[in-house]
Amino acid sequence: MRQDSEFADPLQALAHDLQDDLKIVDELVHQRAASDHVQRIGQVAGHLFTAGGKRVRPILTLASARLFNCEGINHIRLATALEFIHTTTLLHDDVIDRSSRRRGRPTANLLWDDKSSILVGDFLFARAFQLMVATSSVDALTVLADSSAAIAEAEVLQLARQHDTGISEEDYFRIINGKTAALFATGARVGALIAGAGAADCRAAEKFGKSLGISYQIRDDLLDYIGTDKSLGKNVGDDFRDRKVTLPLLRAVQSADVEERAFWNRVIDRGQQREGDLETALSILQSRNILEQVQAEAEAWSNSAIDELRHLPDHPIRGRLRRLAEFAAHRGV
Amino acid sequence: MRQDSEFADPLQALAHDLQDDLKIVDELVHQRAASDHVQRIGQVAGHLFTAGGKRVRPILTLASARLFNCEGINHIRLATALEFIHTTTLLHDDVIDRSSRRRGRPTANLLWDDKSSILVGDFLFARAFQLMVATSSVDALTVLADSSAAIAEAEVLQLARQHDTGISEEDYFRIINGKTAALFATGARVGALIAGAGAADCRAAEKFGKSLGISYQIRDDLLDYIGTDKSLGKNVGDDFRDRKVTLPLLRAVQSADVEERAFWNRVIDRGQQREGDLETALSILQSRNILEQVQAEAEAWSNSAIDELRHLPDHPIRGRLRRLAEFAAHRGV
Repeated sequence: MRQDSEFADPLQALAHDLQDDLKIVDELVHQRAASDHVQRIGQVAGHLFTAGGKRVRPILTLASARLFNCEGINHIRLATALEFIHTTTLLHDDVIDRSSRRRGRPTANLLWDDKSSILVGDFLFARAFQLMVATSSVDALTVLADSSAAIAEAEVLQLARQHDTGISEEDYFRIINGKTAALFATGARVGALIAGAGAADCRAAEKFGKSLGISYQIRDDLLDYIGTDKSLGKNVGDDFRDRKVTLPLLRAVQSADVEERAFWNRVIDRGQQREGDLETALSILQSRNILEQVQAEAEAWSNSAIDELRHLPDHPIRGRLRRLAEFAAHRGV
Repeated sequence: MRQDSEFADPLQALAHDLQDDLKIVDELVHQRAASDHVQRIGQVAGHLFTAGGKRVRPILTLASARLFNCEGINHIRLATALEFIHTTTLLHDDVIDRSSRRRGRPTANLLWDDKSSILVGDFLFARAFQLMVATSSVDALTVLADSSAAIAEAEVLQLARQHDTGISEEDYFRIINGKTAALFATGARVGALIAGAGAADCRAAEKFGKSLGISYQIRDDLLDYIGTDKSLGKNVGDDFRDRKVTLPLLRAVQSADVEERAFWNRVIDRGQQREGDLETALSILQSRNILEQVQAEAEAWSNSAIDELRHLPDHPIRGRLRRLAEFAAHRGV
């Protein structure tokens, strides 16, 4: 598999179509991710924002709003709020994972300290809250509040069940929903909602975002075992070495014989890894066709996302979203 | 000075008057500080809630709502949301301060880990957000969003300027506002607001809460230098040893001669403390009448709080709030 030009950068194509709106989002990010009284807030937040980032979530909100010909400023506010909520999770995650690099730069917790990352994260969440409230849309606020709770719940679940190969597939999906799909779904939904779309349209937009996010995350988990593209900033086996129980591993455990089960228990649950273990893991995944199975799962979610698009208005942006969903399950390598 | 029976437990008297509402708040706390899917959330949050806590913020919301004869459930939701926001700050503060005890028990970060405290804190904030949104009051949401931002901003400011005797009094007040007074003010304000009080009444309730909170916090900072009551869970000199720049110290630095300035720089800014330094600090505070000055400041804010009460409806609860404001500046020792 190679990076197919048909799938090349559908997100960038969307960003191009939505560039006027995105420019205002960037201005609002710049303006609101700072405080007149406390320099450090602007420093820590600015460090993360100037490093770039794909801006998937605000793009989904803006795209969804555009499908329904949204005007005004409220979709911009919500797009910015989503980027802030996402940034809060990044800041807190980097403290929790003791990460040292993010977006090709040292993390804020490394440059400043854990405390600054926790508190600036809290500040950005409060800023997101202010932006959402400024729309006066109780419906959008309800969706965003529920989503925030689901995200935090999934984060605690991930922590409580880390390194546990006995985790259920239901909990794995709850975790990747919280980690990725929930904000994709919410972004797409509130874009439609604030544009005045009806309940069925809002639901379709949400389902599109959710399926897109799950496909994206499963592909991400797979790439950790098959990827060769250094530009993703990942190395094959990172998740294995971090003892993360992702779908490839979960499926391998489900179909393991006694000997394999002992292997997974040793390397993941107990974390006693030796040289050659990654190679053993990869050969089990290959012999049991796990990688194909997981890829099929990513594609099934991508197809679900594309199916949902049929319920949404016929619009050039819809074509872009279709290519984004195709890309989600095929990117990388 | 001794614990005057006139001032004894005015908060408990309020809790008694509001016991029916408080019981529903407690039920809602119990119900919402948990998750069906993730046991650890209920464990960590439950650990903190079952340890008690004074419930000042929800009491202020309920009291303020009662002054305006509030009915329904929305003031209960807001009171619960305030307790959750407060709990988020406690969980995150204990990680940041590496605290090991809270409410007479080991902290959550000690019993579980920092990660659980950060993420369960985030979850409780999301729960607060859900409760606030359930009221459908955009006005209340606006007040709470602004307050959340001010609180997080003050937390970062406190971190950025810790151990810095050069901090301005303006920044000291910004910090104690964020740490204590903002949620007191917001609690009182949204109680009135959700009860349908007019703009002037809401402002008076907010000013009462703010002045009460500032008085309370200044008295707290003073008690760290004069307190003898072990029941407060404090020992004289804790703030000094932690190199916290509170009002007593700030005033001492402002009126310091060259020799004293060198002393404060050594023990606070550079943190080079030796045996006998606390005694030196106390004798400087006494010789310059700092403790009386700071007590006068606490009383002035207490009086401001009492003044604001005149604008609020004549009601038995108002008498209780008056005694609470008197108590704020005189409690402890």
